[in-house]
Amino acid sequence: MGHIMKEIRVGLLGFGTIGTGMVKWIQDNGELIAARTGITLTTTRIADLDITTDRGVSLPEGVLTTDANDVLHGDDVDVVVELVGGTGIALTFVLAALNAGKPVVTANKALLAYHGDEIFAAASANHVDVYYEASVGGGIPIIKAFREGLVANNVTAAYGILNGTCNYILTRMEREGAPFDQILSEAQALGFAEAEPSLDVDGDDTAHKACVLGSLACGKWLGMDSIAKQGIRDVTTDDISIALEAGYRIKLLGIIKQDKDGLQIRVQPTLVPIKSMIGGVMEVYNAVFVTGDAVGDTMFYGAGAGRDATASAVIADLVDVGLNLANGTARRTPPFCPYNDSVSLPPAADIVTRHYVRVHAEDQPNVMAQLTAAFGKAGIGLAEVIQHQTSGPSVPIVFMTHPAREGLVTETLEQISDLAAVTAPPVHFRIEDM
Amino acid sequence: MGHIMKEIRVGLLGFGTIGTGMVKWIQDNGELIAARTGITLTTTRIADLDITTDRGVSLPEGVLTTDANDVLHGDDVDVVVELVGGTGIALTFVLAALNAGKPVVTANKALLAYHGDEIFAAASANHVDVYYEASVGGGIPIIKAFREGLVANNVTAAYGILNGTCNYILTRMEREGAPFDQILSEAQALGFAEAEPSLDVDGDDTAHKACVLGSLACGKWLGMDSIAKQGIRDVTTDDISIALEAGYRIKLLGIIKQDKDGLQIRVQPTLVPIKSMIGGVMEVYNAVFVTGDAVGDTMFYGAGAGRDATASAVIADLVDVGLNLANGTARRTPPFCPYNDSVSLPPAADIVTRHYVRVHAEDQPNVMAQLTAAFGKAGIGLAEVIQHQTSGPSVPIVFMTHPAREGLVTETLEQISDLAAVTAPPVHFRIEDM
Repeated sequence: MGHIMKEIRVGLLGFGTIGTGMVKWIQDNGELIAARTGITLTTTRIADLDITTDRGVSLPEGVLTTDANDVLHGDDVDVVVELVGGTGIALTFVLAALNAGKPVVTANKALLAYHGDEIFAAASANHVDVYYEASVGGGIPIIKAFREGLVANNVTAAYGILNGTCNYILTRMEREGAPFDQILSEAQALGFAEAEPSLDVDGDDTAHKACVLGSLACGKWLGMDSIAKQGIRDVTTDDISIALEAGYRIKLLGIIKQDKDGLQIRVQPTLVPIKSMIGGVMEVYNAVFVTGDAVGDTMFYGAGAGRDATASAVIADLVDVGLNLANGTARRTPPFCPYNDSVSLPPAADIVTRHYVRVHAEDQPNVMAQLTAAFGKAGIGLAEVIQHQTSGPSVPIVFMTHPAREGLVTETLEQISDLAAVTAPPVHFRIEDM
Repeated sequence: MGHIMKEIRVGLLGFGTIGTGMVKWIQDNGELIAARTGITLTTTRIADLDITTDRGVSLPEGVLTTDANDVLHGDDVDVVVELVGGTGIALTFVLAALNAGKPVVTANKALLAYHGDEIFAAASANHVDVYYEASVGGGIPIIKAFREGLVANNVTAAYGILNGTCNYILTRMEREGAPFDQILSEAQALGFAEAEPSLDVDGDDTAHKACVLGSLACGKWLGMDSIAKQGIRDVTTDDISIALEAGYRIKLLGIIKQDKDGLQIRVQPTLVPIKSMIGGVMEVYNAVFVTGDAVGDTMFYGAGAGRDATASAVIADLVDVGLNLANGTARRTPPFCPYNDSVSLPPAADIVTRHYVRVHAEDQPNVMAQLTAAFGKAGIGLAEVIQHQTSGPSVPIVFMTHPAREGLVTETLEQISDLAAVTAPPVHFRIEDM
């Protein structure tokens, strides 16, 4: 059928879980991939500090090395896959590969979020490719959707469940009615959460991924400073059950919105309608709900992490690089095309959303009047007020507001904090009715 | 950033709803698309029998013509967009364009389902591209996902809600408890169903799209003969409410499954769990739930039809064609790469699924015993039997089976039909627990 047949020699940096998956699936499905695309992938070099552990895949003699230079500068490597992770040595490796004229495939969202500009500049200067499908949404081809499938659209909104660990914890908290700390410990024991969980549960990982998607959406590579961020440590089983009662489910979302006032990008625990498409995404799954001005509402769903799903995305990128090498069309679709010199980011205080506020107060006669007066004085309309009978001395009272300016709500919560009857700082999430 | 900048001159055949959308969105977002990709799209020729109706888009003098040859053979046309529809003149046009050496973008699933082999052969002989993203799932980039994003995977299963009209009718039947005929009439009045609804409600359109997806999944272009097909005319509000009661929702699905026994491909009203991702797809929306051996479960969701969503897909294809023209890489990703000479299609009778059977019988003492005996004698296990109190002389009785061979169930239903107390042929749907 007129395929150009070509062998592409893959060098891998970092022989961890995902790297093992890449090697396995290239071995298992390599013939299929070649039949479909003309590209035969061969893993010729793998560099890792540990080259003795049995990963369950067999490799020819001489592939494994402890010297990254064998990958970066090897004559038998056409493309470098960076699966080291982090923003330290990974940056050095990626820049070295690009400067050696080798295209790079990476799954490293933190690296892109912090050093995207530098990496894309080096790729441009050396006229080579950088592909990064596996950096967001694991196996979901969401980067390709943003860059190619939805290329005709202004992305007006994107809501992403981008961290499987958080979604798993929130799912189990709902199902079992058990608190965050307990579920986190169990998730750690089961391997669904890291021993150091902060990157996940404090929202950093979601923010890195939102940075990548937001940058693609707006045409300027955004820094991490642009992103307001709140993790899921404050979510209680009370919040989850009160939200459910009101028809909502709490998800950690990366939210991107673009309109005439500019771009907002934030990571926050968010109440979404249970019946919305994104509200039905449970367990470790990820999803990105994308609205384009032409295409309307779309959603892309799948495993957001894991050896095999992520390998699927890495290999798809390798095929794209391979087709570019086979055809002599490096940078056919450059890794990032900046087309906006400046993007207006409205101050966080100016963002208008609906708000979910949980206040703990002593069970005294005049408390509700004081609280509602605080909202009333600020002109913040209340859509729902929920106070259940409880036995303790301090009762949780939940307010779900009509749309209101973030700054106004923040000020009001400061005033509420100062009330004598209020026993703890209010907890504050956002509501998106999609 | 090293883009090759190129103007691509687009010739359009068929200036209907989608064609109008294409022209509008090229005008509205053309600058954005050029900034992202280097490709400037310009609609230079539009052929339609009606060139006088105002479609609400302004065009330069000389673009509109009633002569298709101006598009097919115009020196000012680099790529031909076929939006005529059907399998008659559209085939002539597409082959003429390809034989004139022009790449083709089409949204025509019926044409591909019936004449894919011929079209792809002509494209190969003339070394030009055929792109068809808009043929399945409207604006959802599902063809790109099958061909590129999930290229590393054997697709083991795909379940598609592929016809917006059917999904809209089933959604309204559930919400309003109103019968098929009434909702169909109202849908026709609102423009959500055609005056001649058969292509939609009898499952043909879904089968055309399943043919495209199934062919991409198995590596052989399948004929329509391969596809078992049942529409939604037999679905009653009773079925919908009984299914809901059991935790299921009825959807018209295109189903593709591949395993060691071969490929099954069928279009059937199917009970899916309400809580499954596909069970939450309502209104006119489409979705394709795809399982790959590497990526696991994924889902792609969006508007399956409509001017703007479909135009989004057509323009994405035009950019791919444009990049190929700009880089001299026609057929970089050929329209279809057959890699299986023969695909084993097990006989329909051998397919094992769970079954939903509705029997109408006279309300007599021994009827239930006779019916359950028929299933029992055949060795078909019953997971659920539902008979509600009703006032009429003929009562609906529903059986939901454990997994059983299609042929065995068909034979059993013939025997049940022959029972004296049974007043109408049993109605038979399938159950997929996803």
